[in-house]
Amino acid sequence: MATTTATHLAEATVPLQATSLTTGLAVRQAARNGTHHSPTFGLAPSYLQANLIVLPSRYASDFRILCARNPVPCPLIAESKSLGCWDAVKSWIDGVSDDGISRELDIRRDAPRYTVYKDSKLAKFECADIVEEWTEDHIAFFIGCSYSFESALCDAGLPPRHALLNCNVAMYRTNVPLCPAGVFTGGTYIVSMRPYKKKDIETVRDITRPYIATHGEPIAWGWDAVEKLGIKNIAEPDWGAAPLTMDGRSLSEVFGDDENVPVFWGCGVTPQEAVMRAGIEGTIMGHAPGHMLVLDCRDWDIVKQQ
Amino acid sequence: MATTTATHLAEATVPLQATSLTTGLAVRQAARNGTHHSPTFGLAPSYLQANLIVLPSRYASDFRILCARNPVPCPLIAESKSLGCWDAVKSWIDGVSDDGISRELDIRRDAPRYTVYKDSKLAKFECADIVEEWTEDHIAFFIGCSYSFESALCDAGLPPRHALLNCNVAMYRTNVPLCPAGVFTGGTYIVSMRPYKKKDIETVRDITRPYIATHGEPIAWGWDAVEKLGIKNIAEPDWGAAPLTMDGRSLSEVFGDDENVPVFWGCGVTPQEAVMRAGIEGTIMGHAPGHMLVLDCRDWDIVKQQ
Repeated sequence: MATTTATHLAEATVPLQATSLTTGLAVRQAARNGTHHSPTFGLAPSYLQANLIVLPSRYASDFRILCARNPVPCPLIAESKSLGCWDAVKSWIDGVSDDGISRELDIRRDAPRYTVYKDSKLAKFECADIVEEWTEDHIAFFIGCSYSFESALCDAGLPPRHALLNCNVAMYRTNVPLCPAGVFTGGTYIVSMRPYKKKDIETVRDITRPYIATHGEPIAWGWDAVEKLGIKNIAEPDWGAAPLTMDGRSLSEVFGDDENVPVFWGCGVTPQEAVMRAGIEGTIMGHAPGHMLVLDCRDWDIVKQQ
Repeated sequence: MATTTATHLAEATVPLQATSLTTGLAVRQAARNGTHHSPTFGLAPSYLQANLIVLPSRYASDFRILCARNPVPCPLIAESKSLGCWDAVKSWIDGVSDDGISRELDIRRDAPRYTVYKDSKLAKFECADIVEEWTEDHIAFFIGCSYSFESALCDAGLPPRHALLNCNVAMYRTNVPLCPAGVFTGGTYIVSMRPYKKKDIETVRDITRPYIATHGEPIAWGWDAVEKLGIKNIAEPDWGAAPLTMDGRSLSEVFGDDENVPVFWGCGVTPQEAVMRAGIEGTIMGHAPGHMLVLDCRDWDIVKQQ
């Protein structure tokens, strides 16, 4: 893992081969024609990136209610315009039209990589498309992604640690229960974690608060939050890279330190886990972790001052 | 406390003196002119009843975000049409107009009883109105109330136990954290509890699920949920009446019984507690517990099939 102290975020995080992918459409087209198949972090800055979940129609109603009841970890941005539709979506964001979310879309090919589950068991991992699995009975859902507020943190001079270190954000299972919805019971919040200096946490809260469609402000912060959330070892995330100090030490080595305070946000992995835990039948599809669907709408389209 | 086994809900629960109060407007007018000052349970059947919270304007934005992030315990129905406005509201419910929520309104007098807090300390309890305390800087918020789905449960032949026993529903503090929002940190879910037979729980979930603006389906159920939610003693609720079996025994005497399984819903006391815990300054007002503001819109206006 990189232990660079690079502070120029763009240099540190944008894959060199992909600097021409500066819009959502460009990323989708490159994924569709097979010229781009790596993670999307740093691509098409300011274009909204989405978590993708595709479900058989009989679970759609319960899934919408799951999202409505748990909007912090499961912010629903859009869904297939109609049953089986893979080339147009209906917007769930006030003030953003259906076409404003994304046009010229092929949900089955436009993420760089996909995951396929059959009867709640992994069937394909990091496959190129889901053309074969998609049926007329499937509905796709787009869920907000915290990449959106990360640009705002960078602009404010508070880039997330994992971006500076050019690695994936650390994600953890917690014991905080989701509000159940129909078949989706027993789920818990998944969180992403970005360490910040104690003195910066209120600013970080303020910056991310308006991004209510992409997880918004943190759900917990501070060293005591680790235990409260039921996280056993901060040094061993369930997904993503182990979190480090800027000089490359494990975060567990600086426990209690005011310079490296863990700050936790709701995470878009939550609905995928909830769907898997529900043990539902049929073919479920999603993007492969990190390989998001990049949309046409921009980060600022979903910012909401209440 | 009543230990009646009356099964005719209307007889058991409608205060005799108030049978003429059959619409939201009638209840509001009776509260306004001082002829009705008791709890509102059973009044104006099918008219939506709301929890009321009135805040100084500087906390309004954070409070809206608190509700948006925690829609199950804090479903925001409407708010003052403009700063300081007490006679008209702006609807937060899709498909219900501002006037559809309530017309001919005086938020300062239309609940039968009020509570006033100054600098987070109780200043007045069960006072008749808040005309003196209301200022041009106040904003009122209406939060959904579970009385709405109780009618639906009665219609389905599954009346809540507390209605059959003609007492208030049992409410408990839990250890389930709210998603924080601005000044509102450290809050936890408050839940209401209605015991049901194990075999009826899935039906009860189905019936209450569409009431997403009034807490929706339960957040937890089963005897093991008591400990999971951090409830120390099911027989001693933090608000409302101690829950009983139909033959008048304490619920703690039948622990593990399939005939009296505790079922927990998000509760509209949650935002009041969250506001109090935030230790904010100035004059905060609300309805007195049980003395709700009765609106013009009907239960079915807020039912949503997703």
